[in-house]
Amino acid sequence: MSRVRKNAPGRILVVGSGPGDPALLTVHARNILAAARLAFTDPDVDKGVTALVGTDHGVDAESGEPIAEVRPALGEPSEVAKTLVAEAKNGHNVVRLVSGDPLTTDSVIAEVTAIARTQVQFEIIPGLPSSSSVPSYAGMALGSGHTEADVRGEVDWSALAAAPGPLVLHATSAHLAETASALVEHGLAPQTPAAITVNGTTRQQRTVEATLATLNDAGSELVGSLVVTVGKVVSHRNKMSWWESRALYGWKVLVPRTKDQAGDMSDRLVTHGAIPMEVPTIAVEPPRSPAQMERSVKGLVDGRYQWVVFTSTNA
Amino acid sequence: MSRVRKNAPGRILVVGSGPGDPALLTVHARNILAAARLAFTDPDVDKGVTALVGTDHGVDAESGEPIAEVRPALGEPSEVAKTLVAEAKNGHNVVRLVSGDPLTTDSVIAEVTAIARTQVQFEIIPGLPSSSSVPSYAGMALGSGHTEADVRGEVDWSALAAAPGPLVLHATSAHLAETASALVEHGLAPQTPAAITVNGTTRQQRTVEATLATLNDAGSELVGSLVVTVGKVVSHRNKMSWWESRALYGWKVLVPRTKDQAGDMSDRLVTHGAIPMEVPTIAVEPPRSPAQMERSVKGLVDGRYQWVVFTSTNA
Repeated sequence: MSRVRKNAPGRILVVGSGPGDPALLTVHARNILAAARLAFTDPDVDKGVTALVGTDHGVDAESGEPIAEVRPALGEPSEVAKTLVAEAKNGHNVVRLVSGDPLTTDSVIAEVTAIARTQVQFEIIPGLPSSSSVPSYAGMALGSGHTEADVRGEVDWSALAAAPGPLVLHATSAHLAETASALVEHGLAPQTPAAITVNGTTRQQRTVEATLATLNDAGSELVGSLVVTVGKVVSHRNKMSWWESRALYGWKVLVPRTKDQAGDMSDRLVTHGAIPMEVPTIAVEPPRSPAQMERSVKGLVDGRYQWVVFTSTNA
Repeated sequence: MSRVRKNAPGRILVVGSGPGDPALLTVHARNILAAARLAFTDPDVDKGVTALVGTDHGVDAESGEPIAEVRPALGEPSEVAKTLVAEAKNGHNVVRLVSGDPLTTDSVIAEVTAIARTQVQFEIIPGLPSSSSVPSYAGMALGSGHTEADVRGEVDWSALAAAPGPLVLHATSAHLAETASALVEHGLAPQTPAAITVNGTTRQQRTVEATLATLNDAGSELVGSLVVTVGKVVSHRNKMSWWESRALYGWKVLVPRTKDQAGDMSDRLVTHGAIPMEVPTIAVEPPRSPAQMERSVKGLVDGRYQWVVFTSTNA
C-alpha cells in the first residue's frame, strides 16, 4: 500500500504571491505554502512570502535546518517545467511560486503550457493582480471597466489608445517616455492625467501625479516595477488616498519596549501608516538581591520618598 | 483614559470577498473578518465568507448567540455610508463586506466617496477580481494585457471592440445577444471564440465554449453572474483546463465513515474535483458486553473461523 502511494506522482501547484504585502496572499495560497516541502521561486517574490514555505514542517531536530526547501526557478520556461515535472514524479507536491498573478506573465504561461503536455496534474492558485490592487492602495477607483497592458514588451499602441476606461500599465522608468509619446500620437490628449506608483501595497508605496506630457519627467527617478494609471480617475485621487495619506505614513518609529510589549504599540503605529522598529532596549527583571527591594519598600512606607513617578507601563 | 479611547472613532474597513470560494479571500481580509464585531454585507457575498465574521469572539456565554453581528447593507450608497460612519463614530471598527473587488463596483465607489467626505478613516482591502481568477480557473491564460468591462451597464462598444488583448466581460444571460451583435457590428469577426463561465472558482463552475455568432444560443440557459472571455485565448482552453477537467469534477460522493475519519478521504476527493458529502453512518463502539468480545476472540483462537475479512480501516 505504501509503495503504491509513493510512486503516485505529486501535483504542481502554481501559486501567485500577489502584489507585495504577504498579507495579500490568498488564504488558499498561504495554506499551500505552509504545507509545501519543495518550492521553486522567482527572484521578485517578496521575502515575507518565501518565508512562509514549509512553516507546517518546522526544522530538522538534528541539524536545525528547515525541512522544506526553497530553490530558485532557473532557466528557460521549458527547463523550469522539466524540473517541476521531474520533482512531482518523485511523489511530492511541488510549489511554483511567482510574483503577482500566474497567468498574466508570459514566461509562467509557457511553463504551464509545457506542464500541461505531460501527465502530471497541476493547479493554478491566482494571486491578487497589482493592476487592480495597486490603484486601490493609491486611492484610484478603476470602476467596472479598465484596460491593462505591460508596456515592457510589444504593445499595440493604437489599440491601447482606443481602449475604454482607465489604462493600467506595467512599466519601468525606462518605458515612460515612449509610453507617453505613443499614447499622445495615437489620440490621447497630452493633458490626460496619469499617476505612477512604485512599491505598491507596501509601506514604501509612493505615487507621483503627472499628465502624459510630464510623465517622463515625473517618473524618471523611480526605481523598480511601476504601475502607471492613466485617465480621469487620477484626478479624484486626493479624495480617496487612504493609504499614503495616513498621519504617520512612511515614518520609521523606534519602539523601545520589552519584547512582549512591543506588539500592541506596533499594531497601532501600523494602523496609522508608520513602520515600527522594535528595539527591546528595556528589560524588566526581578531585583538582584532582596535587600534592594526591601530598602525601596521601606522608603515608601517610612515616607522617605516625597515623589513616586510612574514613567511608563514599566514603572 | 478609557473614556478617551471609547470616544475615538473606529475605522471603516471595506473588504472584498473575492470571486466566490472563501479560500480565495486574502489573508488580510480573513483576519479582519475574524476580528470584526460588526459587518454590513451585500446579499451576493458567499455564505462561507460571512460565516467568518467575528470568529475570534465566539458566542455569548449566556445566550449562546454569536457576539459579532452581520447586517445587510440596505439602501442607496449615501445611506449605507451614513450608517457605516455613525457606527464607526460609536468607537468600533466597522466592516463593509462586498463581493469581488471593492473599487470595481460603482455603488461601492459611491459609498467610499461619501465616507471620504467625513473625518472617519477608512481602508480598502482589495479582493481577487473575478475577471482574472475566473479565466484562470477555466483554463484561459489572459497574459500580460486584457480589457475588462461590465456589459450590464452602459458600454462604449466601439472602444471595447477596438481594445487590445482578450476581453473579459461581466454579464448575465440577458446581455449576451446585445454583446455579441454590438461587438460584431463594431468590427470583431463573428467567428471570434468566446467562453462563458458560470459559478466561477466554485465546484459548480461550468464553462461553455462558443463564438460571437453562437454566444447567445450557448449561454441563454445559464443562471446568475457570468464571466465572458472573448478572444484567441479561448481556443487554447482544452490544453489548460485544470479545474473542470479533473477526474471526479462535479461528482457528489457520499463519504459514509465515522466523523473523525471523513476529513482525510474528503480532502482526497476534493483534490480530484469531487464534492464530498460526509455522512457519519458508521460508529465504532466498544462491545456492549465483555462476553461478546470474548466469544469472538475464542472463536479466532479455536480455529472456529475459516476466514477473517478486513472490509475497511474500521474492520
